[in-house]
Amino acid sequence: MGSTCEMNAAVSVWRRLPLFVLASSLCLCLSRAEDSAMENIVTEKKAEESHRQDSADLLIFILLLTLTILTIWLFKHRRFRFLHETGLAMIYGLLVGVVLRYAIHVPNNMNNVTLSCNVNASPATLLMNVSGKFYEYTLKGEIGANEVNDIQDNEMLRKVTFDPEVFFNILLPPIIFHAGYSLKRRHFFRNLGSILVYAFVGTVVSCFIIGLLMYGCVTLMKQIGQLGGDFFFTDCLFFGAIVSATDPVTVLAIFNELHVDSDLYALLFGESVLNDAVAVVLSSSIVAYQPEGDNTHTFEAMAMLKSFGIFLGVFSGSFALGVATGVVTALVTKFTKLRDLPLLETALFFLMSWSTFLLAEACGFTGVVAVLFCGMTQAHYTFNNLSPESQDRTKQLFELLNFLAENFIFSYMGLTLFTFQNHVFNPIFIVGAFLAVFLGRAANIYPLSFLLNLGRKNKISPNFQHMMMFAGLRGAMTFALSIRDTATYARQMMFSTTLLVVFFTVWICGGGTTQMLSCQKIRVGVDADQENTIGPDGVECRSTKHESAWPFRIWYNFDHNYLKPILTHSGPPLTATLPTCCGPLARCLTSPQAYENEGQLKDDDSDLILNDGDINLTYGDITVSTDATGAHTSGTAVGGVAVNSDEALDRELAFGDHELVIRGTRLVLPMDDSEPPLPVDSHRHRHKYETMS
Amino acid sequence: MGSTCEMNAAVSVWRRLPLFVLASSLCLCLSRAEDSAMENIVTEKKAEESHRQDSADLLIFILLLTLTILTIWLFKHRRFRFLHETGLAMIYGLLVGVVLRYAIHVPNNMNNVTLSCNVNASPATLLMNVSGKFYEYTLKGEIGANEVNDIQDNEMLRKVTFDPEVFFNILLPPIIFHAGYSLKRRHFFRNLGSILVYAFVGTVVSCFIIGLLMYGCVTLMKQIGQLGGDFFFTDCLFFGAIVSATDPVTVLAIFNELHVDSDLYALLFGESVLNDAVAVVLSSSIVAYQPEGDNTHTFEAMAMLKSFGIFLGVFSGSFALGVATGVVTALVTKFTKLRDLPLLETALFFLMSWSTFLLAEACGFTGVVAVLFCGMTQAHYTFNNLSPESQDRTKQLFELLNFLAENFIFSYMGLTLFTFQNHVFNPIFIVGAFLAVFLGRAANIYPLSFLLNLGRKNKISPNFQHMMMFAGLRGAMTFALSIRDTATYARQMMFSTTLLVVFFTVWICGGGTTQMLSCQKIRVGVDADQENTIGPDGVECRSTKHESAWPFRIWYNFDHNYLKPILTHSGPPLTATLPTCCGPLARCLTSPQAYENEGQLKDDDSDLILNDGDINLTYGDITVSTDATGAHTSGTAVGGVAVNSDEALDRELAFGDHELVIRGTRLVLPMDDSEPPLPVDSHRHRHKYETMS
Repeated sequence: MGSTCEMNAAVSVWRRLPLFVLASSLCLCLSRAEDSAMENIVTEKKAEESHRQDSADLLIFILLLTLTILTIWLFKHRRFRFLHETGLAMIYGLLVGVVLRYAIHVPNNMNNVTLSCNVNASPATLLMNVSGKFYEYTLKGEIGANEVNDIQDNEMLRKVTFDPEVFFNILLPPIIFHAGYSLKRRHFFRNLGSILVYAFVGTVVSCFIIGLLMYGCVTLMKQIGQLGGDFFFTDCLFFGAIVSATDPVTVLAIFNELHVDSDLYALLFGESVLNDAVAVVLSSSIVAYQPEGDNTHTFEAMAMLKSFGIFLGVFSGSFALGVATGVVTALVTKFTKLRDLPLLETALFFLMSWSTFLLAEACGFTGVVAVLFCGMTQAHYTFNNLSPESQDRTKQLFELLNFLAENFIFSYMGLTLFTFQNHVFNPIFIVGAFLAVFLGRAANIYPLSFLLNLGRKNKISPNFQHMMMFAGLRGAMTFALSIRDTATYARQMMFSTTLLVVFFTVWICGGGTTQMLSCQKIRVGVDADQENTIGPDGVECRSTKHESAWPFRIWYNFDHNYLKPILTHSGPPLTATLPTCCGPLARCLTSPQAYENEGQLKDDDSDLILNDGDINLTYGDITVSTDATGAHTSGTAVGGVAVNSDEALDRELAFGDHELVIRGTRLVLPMDDSEPPLPVDSHRHRHKYETMS
Repeated sequence: MGSTCEMNAAVSVWRRLPLFVLASSLCLCLSRAEDSAMENIVTEKKAEESHRQDSADLLIFILLLTLTILTIWLFKHRRFRFLHETGLAMIYGLLVGVVLRYAIHVPNNMNNVTLSCNVNASPATLLMNVSGKFYEYTLKGEIGANEVNDIQDNEMLRKVTFDPEVFFNILLPPIIFHAGYSLKRRHFFRNLGSILVYAFVGTVVSCFIIGLLMYGCVTLMKQIGQLGGDFFFTDCLFFGAIVSATDPVTVLAIFNELHVDSDLYALLFGESVLNDAVAVVLSSSIVAYQPEGDNTHTFEAMAMLKSFGIFLGVFSGSFALGVATGVVTALVTKFTKLRDLPLLETALFFLMSWSTFLLAEACGFTGVVAVLFCGMTQAHYTFNNLSPESQDRTKQLFELLNFLAENFIFSYMGLTLFTFQNHVFNPIFIVGAFLAVFLGRAANIYPLSFLLNLGRKNKISPNFQHMMMFAGLRGAMTFALSIRDTATYARQMMFSTTLLVVFFTVWICGGGTTQMLSCQKIRVGVDADQENTIGPDGVECRSTKHESAWPFRIWYNFDHNYLKPILTHSGPPLTATLPTCCGPLARCLTSPQAYENEGQLKDDDSDLILNDGDINLTYGDITVSTDATGAHTSGTAVGGVAVNSDEALDRELAFGDHELVIRGTRLVLPMDDSEPPLPVDSHRHRHKYETMS
């Protein structure tokens, strides 16, 4: 067999290069070429050339992003909401893709050194003995035979096609972490039950629905003879898994702008964040199902169970890891006075959060999932221990990373539609896919909403359901999952189809959000506070504020009485909440602040208030229970009259402004803190009771 | 000849991996292995294993940094100044290096597939045909024969040794940019002349002194027969160039803490920032001098001139590029209302600054140098156009990047002392190097200070000179330059020696800074404002405030009257400063704010005040000149009485606090803006006159 050596260092070097170090890493591998070029001037020249070439190519991307930024500014300046920045990035990406594909023709400046060599394996690293000197080569991956033939033609295209793992390991983590870190926790937890159902049950349902439909579609294609390669049921399921990850970034941006009902926002955001995680693990466990070696793609109970076990194991493992590192960070930031030095604090926060990803990958779990839950933990606990400056710094840092990564992914999506070499566009498959995606989303939203409404008193109204149905955009995660492996024919067809699905949903559904909102008569400009009292479907919501939130309520009490005091400076002293037996432990864990600092306390939770605008509801409830336990309520304006939660709440909520809210919490909580250990149980009982009624 | 193929994907993969994407990029190249592993399960297993292994290895680094951060906090908490964070990072790096070298023994889990193959070149990219499938390999570089023999032993070590270009292309740029962006501009420009002399003349002098001394040392070694390989004069010069880049980060940190005289601070910081740039370009042009192919390392006038031309060309080119992109960013931020959206603004700023690096690399200039001047331009112009939030964001972002990169480099330095494979420690060379470094620094500081003092009335006092001599630490830049190429025997010896020089200077000189300050009786706790009036050597400074600053003064007027109005919203309207002929141009360039915004104006320059604490001197001068031109000074508290600059100044400066300063500027400058075009010339004349006297 023959193995071709080229002098061109840059071929496909883009593959494995992230946005931030593209140019850099380029030089990196070239530099080595320069070393060897001590005795090989040709290589050196080539290396320099292609290094410059690659820097120039990267400049294209950067200028693309710059252009996107400027255009976004214009749009926001003009209140132009039909095209979101991501959609815009895709369009610019498309344009550049067209130019690269058709306009630019790179002259073939490679003199290939051909040498024969009988190789019987494709090792990851190759040591080559050249006149006594050893050179090391690293496997970059397989290249289609056609590419080898006309390599000079598509060299340019292959250069701007870089390794799909970049998305998983550089671009997605900041996006996912940011999602977790900026989660509107209050509303998220209020709708926790529904969100979990949508995310887990819903994703699995839609995965299997889509998988089955696509299998039908594929068998049909086989009959017609439209199918050019293998396409097994597991492939269909895999496709179902990857297109089940929704990413309504466009919709949520508009929701934010228009202040759409924040329960709807929480449902959509929470679902989209979690189903990304579910989809990742689901797809990997589906891949794990495939019996390697033999191609008997039949149903096997054992393999099925194995996949299920993998799903549970990987998901729970990643979850545990993410939470663990978050907790560690919280403890470190709590028990060191690091908050005096915001720079160190921010650096520590960044490093710890990043180590989550590495730890998960090192343990064989999914880094992206771990990062998500780490972000949520950091937001809920660590954030309260950070100095105000670090709170801004971390928020802004990850906001920036998220922005850059997201727009890069979307512009790359546009680019890759033209630059990807092995597209397989099959009309039948595409039509089937669109249909399946639609039905899969429907089978996720409507039945589950019906079931949930049986339990929820704060019903998910039909127009909400339609909106959620409509907001089932596919985005970065779907793309990353589909481009991750395009080796086989089936995967290539999936990838091409997925691209179209993403384009369609982002442009059409994303662009039509405002129209959809208006035609669904969904109230916009809702003040988060009022929305608690009046809610989407009028009076009913008021009477059902408690029941709809009961998982949140139980969780909140545990969190507020035990976790927050342990992990942050806020909450009641553990000495008050823990049983007396573990007094010493409680004393050493409780931070001195917890005893005397109302101001501190207010600070800690005011970030929730500022984030969510209506944490006060919670305090309202706590007030109630503490009153009921006979805790002295004298001298507290809100608490004093809060014998019945609702009245107090309404009175409190009637004023929409935060000043009052914060004052309210400050007045209520100290009393909640100075609560003796005894009533805590009745405290919890009461809540159970409340939820029963 | 034989070429050995191994199944181990991770060998040396660390080489080309940056801090931030280490783990990521690891998976990147592995992922390709996984693709090919569709038909090669062994490879897949290996790839997964080594992916996990590499994630774990990276975790070591991250935990190292985390540990460093916590320890730094302890030190700062305890006011412990003998060990700077960088020195600490080095120590931790050393410890981990020792552990990796001696404690950990990685079992040899590689089954080498040996296959014979006659290769006659070391191409940068290798296409390999394995049973019809093409696999692509990228050159990682040369490997010592000894490493090939006992490859399984030092696999671990080679894994934690990554590509030196990482420093140049990922870690140095943020550091250098931050240096330029956080430059104390006011003092920098006041001592511009001296700084330039130290940076350019001084670096070249010390480079040649060290080069000559080392050449003597090397010839001596030849005689004794201590030299194990070639060592040419150009190598000696190269060594001189790389160790001439000072990096007193430790010293400056202490200066900041102790508020040491800010002229001394400016001299040291300015010199160290600029001589990094000079050293980079100098070393590259020395390398360019070497006549490739034939080893006649004799003196050639032509080659010498060529190198000199390269030096000038590359330096000026990089300078121009850096300034250009800075100016573009300034114009974009000025003429768009991007400041409404801080996130976009920050992203744009980041992308533009980064594109400088790429542009320079693409044009064949030095990215690091370009980034430095870009940073200075951004700080001086763009910064004023940014929204306050973006000002914080950009500052904090680059502060963080700088912190992480710097500590990573230093901890890697410690690590590499044990993990680097080809150390060549030669006692004679090392002793000679230390001597040469000392003498080179001396030959830089003392003679130049003497010459400068002839021009300066604000003399650089002997104790300042000793301090500058003492503060000639070598750091990140020296290390990056020396590790960039360790192919030849000479370079390896240089690298090992450089490491020791860095360790010594950072630990000993860095640690002894406070003692040095006290034994040199250099006043600490200087309020930047008072220091203007009293200065290091008492009365003299006062009377010479003007003369010593004349380059700054001329530059300031041009900048304030033309550049700032064009590039920022501040400064006098161009319609006032430009000759009437270019009225239309002036009108369209002048931002509306420039006409009416005192507040704006104050904002723009107050950042200088907040950065430097004493820009008011400048305004004081402006006040004088404007008064002298007969501009009505009524209604301005400071300006009104400022007929003689010094009295006004002293009265102004007597109060140290910023409130007054800012108020002062606000009162003074509007008048300076409403200055008619005519007086400007007399304005400049006056300055010339002043400087003559």
